Amino acid sequence: MVGRKKTQGGKKHVILVSNDDGIRSPGIKAIASALKKLGEVYVVAPDRERSAASHSLTLHRPLRVHRVGPREYAIDGTPTDCITLALKVKGILPMRPSIVVSGINMGGNLGEDITYSGTVSAAMEGTLLGIPSIAVSLVARRNFNFRASARFAARFVRLILENGLPKDTLLNVNVPSAGRIKGARITRQGKRVFGDVVVEKVDPRGKKYYWIGGDMLRWEGGEDTDFAAVAKGYISITPVHLDMTNYSAVSGLQHWKF
Amino acid sequence: MVGRKKTQGGKKHVILVSNDDGIRSPGIKAIASALKKLGEVYVVAPDRERSAASHSLTLHRPLRVHRVGPREYAIDGTPTDCITLALKVKGILPMRPSIVVSGINMGGNLGEDITYSGTVSAAMEGTLLGIPSIAVSLVARRNFNFRASARFAARFVRLILENGLPKDTLLNVNVPSAGRIKGARITRQGKRVFGDVVVEKVDPRGKKYYWIGGDMLRWEGGEDTDFAAVAKGYISITPVHLDMTNYSAVSGLQHWKF
Repeated sequence: MVGRKKTQGGKKHVILVSNDDGIRSPGIKAIASALKKLGEVYVVAPDRERSAASHSLTLHRPLRVHRVGPREYAIDGTPTDCITLALKVKGILPMRPSIVVSGINMGGNLGEDITYSGTVSAAMEGTLLGIPSIAVSLVARRNFNFRASARFAARFVRLILENGLPKDTLLNVNVPSAGRIKGARITRQGKRVFGDVVVEKVDPRGKKYYWIGGDMLRWEGGEDTDFAAVAKGYISITPVHLDMTNYSAVSGLQHWKF
Repeated sequence: MVGRKKTQGGKKHVILVSNDDGIRSPGIKAIASALKKLGEVYVVAPDRERSAASHSLTLHRPLRVHRVGPREYAIDGTPTDCITLALKVKGILPMRPSIVVSGINMGGNLGEDITYSGTVSAAMEGTLLGIPSIAVSLVARRNFNFRASARFAARFVRLILENGLPKDTLLNVNVPSAGRIKGARITRQGKRVFGDVVVEKVDPRGKKYYWIGGDMLRWEGGEDTDFAAVAKGYISITPVHLDMTNYSAVSGLQHWKF
């Protein structure tokens, strides 16, 4: 377990909040506000939307840190950049944070979304740096009501502050649209089946261009998946492991004549 | 197993090659050339370096596809974009590829590098699309000699074409600098310990900026890791699973009062 510790002598927890929708997103404001009762909340987030940024790091250019309010910093980089700079640049945080909270994302991060998601990646970076981390997403397409999901997220953060998390593991939380939440389930990562995802169009000069989009057709994987939980009105909590080794494949591969 | 099939009636394999160093990288030229004896090689790669692009997708702007040579296409996007467009845009590939090969990357992709790496992400995207996929990196900092690693990579590609790969699993291959290769080992993902990774400087106008960099201090994880294999002069072959669920954590979390 990492991060399991008591606060000493009334010393408050420092809570680091980021996201991939950008610092002006209502989702990050909702969660930052809900977490204030648990500790000192610092928001360090991208200065604009960086959805699908995945776990990318900005290595080819310098980054700027702008203080935009009390304990609020905007960075012209990815969610991963934000966590890295929050931890490494002196003067942002007063001490090492007790937890990294990423979200609330406007839209779900289910199944293999976690490999693309900037929201989950901020939690990944926290985990890699040895800090318990949680990513929270609201599975909706419009009418984002962040109030209920922020309240649940705060409850989960409190549990993590009390219990810590297993090593190299983050929690990926997806909350169904408000109004029909039946409870929470521990789930495994499901699998999407996508339809055509590339749209071909012609620009004003007659040249072709392509836009990646497309919709999920269905999901696979059974009743214990993240998709199934959310579809039935439950909050999905998936423990995500950063050791991606397929251990069950190791022995089979040993027989190959490499 | 996916992708295990015989070529029928002398029909050639289509091999899709990409990378994150960009289409002009000597690493991609070396591997494309070495694979020509195994099938029809199509190169679809970023038009410039996209290192540390991770599994990011370009969703906020359109993408262009430029044919730059016979069976060679440059795209103004990430490695993940390249695989997506290669598969979805009509007229690039004559048929579904038998395998996706990403690399040869100039530099290792060891331990948690795989969560940042554009090279590995191209193989991830191939795997998500149900195509056996392999990422190949040369663990060197200068004097990149791609000849030996391309030869080994071609041997591994042949093995995958014959045997397929376990479901949702890619192979992450790291080749030590040439001249001292002792063989190949099936490994697990190790763990880096980083030093300070952010450099603070002042720009000509007197304003601070930050640049992410820094060096690995050491690695952890024992003799069966990717780091250990490469350090001892062996090629490291790690089976990487896209189901990131930490199954061993599920039962413990069931007891939490979510």
